Formats: sequence, C-alpha cells, structure tokens
Amino acid sequence: LRSVASSSKDLPGEFELIARLSAGLRFSRRTILGPGDDCAILRPARNAQLLTIDSMVEGVHFKIGWGTPEQIGERALAVNLSDIAAMGGTPTACVINFGIPKTAKMPFIDRLNRGLRSAARAAQVDIVGGNITSAREFAITIALLGDAGAQVMRRDAARPGDNIFVTGTLGDAALGWRILAHKVRAQSRARSFLVDRYLTPTARLEAGARLARLRPVPAAIDISDGLLQDLSHMLDSSGVGADLDETKVPLSAAYREVARDDLSHALTGGEDYELLFCARTSLPERELSRRLGVRVTRIGAIRRRRGIGLAHMKLPASAGYDQLRG
Amino acid sequence: LRSVASSSKDLPGEFELIARLSAGLRFSRRTILGPGDDCAILRPARNAQLLTIDSMVEGVHFKIGWGTPEQIGERALAVNLSDIAAMGGTPTACVINFGIPKTAKMPFIDRLNRGLRSAARAAQVDIVGGNITSAREFAITIALLGDAGAQVMRRDAARPGDNIFVTGTLGDAALGWRILAHKVRAQSRARSFLVDRYLTPTARLEAGARLARLRPVPAAIDISDGLLQDLSHMLDSSGVGADLDETKVPLSAAYREVARDDLSHALTGGEDYELLFCARTSLPERELSRRLGVRVTRIGAIRRRRGIGLAHMKLPASAGYDQLRG
Repeated sequence: LRSVASSSKDLPGEFELIARLSAGLRFSRRTILGPGDDCAILRPARNAQLLTIDSMVEGVHFKIGWGTPEQIGERALAVNLSDIAAMGGTPTACVINFGIPKTAKMPFIDRLNRGLRSAARAAQVDIVGGNITSAREFAITIALLGDAGAQVMRRDAARPGDNIFVTGTLGDAALGWRILAHKVRAQSRARSFLVDRYLTPTARLEAGARLARLRPVPAAIDISDGLLQDLSHMLDSSGVGADLDETKVPLSAAYREVARDDLSHALTGGEDYELLFCARTSLPERELSRRLGVRVTRIGAIRRRRGIGLAHMKLPASAGYDQLRG
Repeated sequence: LRSVASSSKDLPGEFELIARLSAGLRFSRRTILGPGDDCAILRPARNAQLLTIDSMVEGVHFKIGWGTPEQIGERALAVNLSDIAAMGGTPTACVINFGIPKTAKMPFIDRLNRGLRSAARAAQVDIVGGNITSAREFAITIALLGDAGAQVMRRDAARPGDNIFVTGTLGDAALGWRILAHKVRAQSRARSFLVDRYLTPTARLEAGARLARLRPVPAAIDISDGLLQDLSHMLDSSGVGADLDETKVPLSAAYREVARDDLSHALTGGEDYELLFCARTSLPERELSRRLGVRVTRIGAIRRRRGIGLAHMKLPASAGYDQLRG
C-alpha cells in the first residue's frame, strides 16, 4: 500500500522528500498556502485562468547523462511554460508530480530540483505543491496555471489571408537531439549551440504576451511536434489551409553548418518550443521582431483550401503527417 | 523526439488519442475552452482556489486485473477528490496526464477513460485537458482544481482540547489490498466489501464541505497513508500531540470478521480516504454524523504535549512512523 519511495535505502520517505523539495520556497502574493497540506490555496484571480499539464519521462523525453540534472529540471518546466506562452498568458503557479525509481540517488534529485526551482523563479512561478511516487523510470509531470490576460490566443483562430510567422529558428533542437543520440556529427561550436537548444529550450513567454496584444488577436500554437505537424493542428482547428514557402523557414548558422540544405529537421523536427502564429498584421518582419523582442519570420499565408502547399518541394512523407491533407 | 505512443501498432497517435479521450465531454459554465489547445481556459473564480496533484502508477498503486479498467479510472480521480474534500472544497476542473506503455490496447484505455469520465461527471468536475506520453508502466497523473468556499480546513489548525474524529470505518482498504495480494483470505461477502473499499474509495466531498461550515473551522486531513501516519502529519503541522483511544477506532463488520481483534490495519493501513478532523464541537457523534451525512466517530483529543499516546497499547513500530514522538 505504500506508494512512496521509502522502501529504498538511499531515499528518504515521501514526507521528508517533499519537505526537501519545497524547503525555503518563496511565494508571490497570489499563493495563500504552498506545499504541505492536502491542497495548495491560491487567491482568486481577476482574469480567466489557463491550465495545462505536461510530462517528461526518462528514456522517452530525456536520457540521464545527456545534460546536467539541473537542465532536466529546467526543461521540464520550460515545456509547460511554452504552452502558456502560446496562449499569450502569464504563468503563475504549478504542482509537480515526481515518479522516482528506487535506484535514484538524492544528489541527483536535489540537482534536478535546483533546476526546477531556478526555472520557476525566473518565470515567477510559485511551486505550490508536489507529489512523489515510486516508478520504474524517472518522470516529472507538471500542471501549470497561468493568467490569461485580457485576450487569449487560440489555435482555432487562423483565417484566410493571415500571414504565417514563426519566432526564432527551427530544427535546432531536432539536430541537438540527433547529435546527443550519435546520429549526426557536429563541430564544437555548432554542436554546443544545437545541443543547448535541445536541452534548455526557451519558452517565448514575453513574445507570447506581446503578441496577444495585437488586434485582431493572432492564432498561435507552440512548435513542440515539428512545424508541419503543429501547423496542421492549427489548420485543422481553424478549418483552413496554408501556403508555405519552405525556403523562408528560419535556420540558424549552426543548422546550416550541420544539415546543409536538408530542411527536414526544420520542417518536421520537434521540441523547438518556438511560436507559430497567424496574424492579419501588415507590419514588416523587422518591426514585428522589434515589438516581440525576438526574431520573427514570415513563412507563408493562410488559404481557404484545406491542407498545406509547399512552394518548392513535396510534403515529406514522414510518420505522423497522415492528417495532412494536401 | 516523438514523445507519443504512435510507434505502437495498436495505438493511434497522440493527437487522435487525446481527441478520443476528450470526445463528447460536456462542460460547466466555468470552462471557456476544454482540451485541444495548448491550455484550457477557465473563467475567473470568486473564491480562493485549491490545487492538488496525485498519481496512480501500475505496479505501485494498482495492478491491472485486480479490478476493472473502469475502476482504475474512477480510483485515479477519487484520490484527488479526497484532497479537495479534506480542505472542505468543491472540485471543479482537472487535467490528466497518461503514461501509456507501447503494449497497451485501445479497449483497455477506452474503458479506463470511461471510469474517469463517469467519476468526473458524478463529482461535477470538467476534464479540461490531457497529455499522453509513452512510458514503461501505466501512470495516471491528475491535477485537480477546486473552489475553496468561504472557509478552508487546514491540517495546521488542531488545538489542545479539540476532539479528534474520523468518518466511516478504517482499515477496510488495507484488508482489501491484502486480499487481492493473496496475503489474507476472506469469505465472499466480507471479501467483496473490503476489496470494493480498496478499489473504489469514496471521497468524502459532501462531508468535507459541510465540516468546513462548522465554527471554529476544524483542522482536517484525508487518511491516505494510514490513521497514525496522517494524524502525525496533522500534529506536526499544528505543533501539538494527541491522546487516542484505539479501541474507539471504527471498524466495519467485514473488518472484524477477517482481522478479528487485530487493530493494525485500521491504525496503519492506508488508502481509506476517510476524513480525520479535529473540532472544538460539543455536538454528540450522532448529531455530527447526521449533519455530515456520514458516520462520525470520536477517537481521541488533542493535547499540548507532542506525540501520540494510545490508551491501551504501545505504538506499532511499523515502517514510516519514525516521526511519531511518543
């Protein structure tokens, strides 16, 4: 009946572990009661609330040893923050479930926790509760609350005539993952840039919040599954299609150095956590980039006819694109 | 990079799976947007909000085949509902993370999902979001939001002189688990009662909400780790101790039939999800039971001196009670 990792010799019991994970946490005014009771208590909010859940599982989303334990912790929060960013919201509070194998060592957990806390502090998110269960593999599941602000960006709001934009550069994380998995080789500078893009993605919180202030409110989604996959989610939700100029997809210098003219990682590689958005704006890229505080590139336009049309190439027939109707 | 179970032949991709899990969900007025976008959108609430997270892992909290898949789904929500009940709140919305092994079959997932939905419907909880990841073992992690009402019951509010009460009967779930694990034998009627108490615990939501209306507001906690363990959490949080009459601990007829005069399951067995509360009330048990809509039994009183004193026996030296100071 014991659901806790207390049967391991190296680990303290659940109660002590939670106390350790939450020791010395400081909270914003929004939090009335943090970890330690059956629930956290949060002050009522004036705006609509955003809620999302995401999980990072050892062997599926990360391998121990690829990055530091701190980076694993940071990354677990970042993928959740990205969901809030994609709606244009401000993250506020989270609860964290840890699945911890019996073989886990306390120094590893402490370092992972340090990464989680520093990411939470940087994003001004209160860690208000936690739960620990023993498990065969490490898993960090985070449920994150956010404040919606005055306007929310949804993925079902793309309309024919909208321009399609992305933030940052695409495909870096996919290449970083392939480098870590020894599937691709890279020289030191490009290697460290691409691996970092995979290990410590940046949720585009500030850009998302500023985007949500445009009128009309853009449609947006974060790129977690890959550009074509996430674009198709947006198109399906909105009941529209897209013309894409794949040669416009923004690539980093490191991407070009490693992958040359192979666009597949940028089109179908996931885990970039950049924003993909559709806006009726006539602002030039440069002005939009200035306003959002991040490089923004126009890569196409929304059309009435369903499916995705690429300007120069055929749609890659990779797994997972069965719902793309061309 | 694919974090989804789509590499399995039997399972549809993540996107389709989530669509299936959320198909036909109906929402209360509180929910502006349910599953399908990066986040759910919820209307702002007038009262303080409760937030909790809990996880049920195959092999740790349940074994496939012990109950029906529907019961596994129901139980996953019930343990979360119990945390809201213990604070006296009303559950409102949840997000669910599924860890699904590649060997999983769709009919099993569909049935589990049916159990989750019917439990959510019964508790008037909106399932507003989900996430699916492949994993080595089944895991259902639920983050649940609740409305705190006018007053919240906390575990740090027990004061010397308070009477200590529990709802329902204790130790049934522990015996049910031991029956399923072939550690204890029982005749058919007692067996099915005890096994049901383990497989489908009842969160004491109504009793919790009514309790929170008593003045002064009681201290409360749910009994998930066992009476002595959870009492000690409450005593530690409140900085007090307790005198307990262990012969007063309420036992079911089935418990007595199977365990005779062995009180250990009632004192230290977990997973009962009854409420343990401390109240300054002078109401007799019968009247309190009537008001709360569930049997209530007085089992002791809070004292100034730390630790737990039992009336007739020594504290059991079971694992996990190291923080009990006698």
